[in-house]
Amino acid sequence: MEQLLRVMNFNVSRDGIGAGEHQTLESPFGHAHPERLFAWAGATASWPMRTDPGGSRGLDDYFTRDFAHNIGAEIMGRNKFGPQRGPWLDHDWLGWWGEEPPFHTPVFVMTHHIRPAITLSDTTFHFVDDDPGTVLERARKAAQGKDVRLGGGVSTIRQFLDADLVDTLHVAVAPVELGSGIRLWKTPDELLDRFHLEIVPSASGVAHHLFWRK
Amino acid sequence: MEQLLRVMNFNVSRDGIGAGEHQTLESPFGHAHPERLFAWAGATASWPMRTDPGGSRGLDDYFTRDFAHNIGAEIMGRNKFGPQRGPWLDHDWLGWWGEEPPFHTPVFVMTHHIRPAITLSDTTFHFVDDDPGTVLERARKAAQGKDVRLGGGVSTIRQFLDADLVDTLHVAVAPVELGSGIRLWKTPDELLDRFHLEIVPSASGVAHHLFWRK
Repeated sequence: MEQLLRVMNFNVSRDGIGAGEHQTLESPFGHAHPERLFAWAGATASWPMRTDPGGSRGLDDYFTRDFAHNIGAEIMGRNKFGPQRGPWLDHDWLGWWGEEPPFHTPVFVMTHHIRPAITLSDTTFHFVDDDPGTVLERARKAAQGKDVRLGGGVSTIRQFLDADLVDTLHVAVAPVELGSGIRLWKTPDELLDRFHLEIVPSASGVAHHLFWRK
Repeated sequence: MEQLLRVMNFNVSRDGIGAGEHQTLESPFGHAHPERLFAWAGATASWPMRTDPGGSRGLDDYFTRDFAHNIGAEIMGRNKFGPQRGPWLDHDWLGWWGEEPPFHTPVFVMTHHIRPAITLSDTTFHFVDDDPGTVLERARKAAQGKDVRLGGGVSTIRQFLDADLVDTLHVAVAPVELGSGIRLWKTPDELLDRFHLEIVPSASGVAHHLFWRK
């Protein structure tokens, strides 16, 4: 079985922006209020952060239900772990994800400032300062035959796309315009030389963009 | 966690027919040639019967990929196991599914003619002569906390719908007309009193009908 590198449930605005400017501890997405980008996911029965019963089981639920399915590791950029830049000043702060992170696998955090691994419940964060190919190799080994999720943010996804290491992408385009921020693409057509694309509109208002390698 | 009863990847024609007339050993679907109903599924990367690499990873693949996900047992009608009617005349014939059935869980076959259980690889077929509620209770126990798939055919699904035991249905409506055969519905609107419905057209030509309980 091949081990895919998959972008899953990644959210951008209609103008291709996946995070806003001015990221802080209180605002992980900067001026891009996540509820405007993520609302479709939070409404589904299988949303990994859901704490109450209920939720929809239509199209959108197939995407959130797939989040952990056959995934053995995640790779993320440092900004998905925390808002700090430069050397870590406070090793006691253990990231944005709380004591029960929703990953339940090894997670490889790409940073130029490595620090000891952190285990929270059944998720272990490893801090790695390597090129995308080397990090992917390590994540594949940790995934023990399962696929690897590429968790974002935008600049991490761009790095792996530039290295041609991504096999599939699911990007949900939300019906909002952000105007400025970190941009995944000007248009999804930029990827059509290497990927098939199906665009599936959902009743929730997002357009699921499904890419897979030609 | 609740244990759902789920109809998954069930295929009908545009006129609501899930199997044809004159089912035989050679023609499990009677005059309804399955390739016309199933083509969308066979084209996906995650089709459980796939033997070669490749296949699409767009929308349709989310449905075939979900086939075994969090499923701990299947319930099927006798006609999905074999074409025989009345008492079993040949216990050596072990069903349509070969030595490596794609279920990989306990399977409960509803029949008025019980026979000893059959184990083929990691699938065990149990033959049960009970009402839908009793069979579901047994399947839920066997599923050990996971969901139960209701595998069909049409009359088995109708029985469980009539007993109001079905939680979700994914029915792929293929762009063919069969005219006669065993009918799941005259129109999907028949289920709208009890279920939400989203209809998602796919590039493959089928329309995925997703129902979940109100």
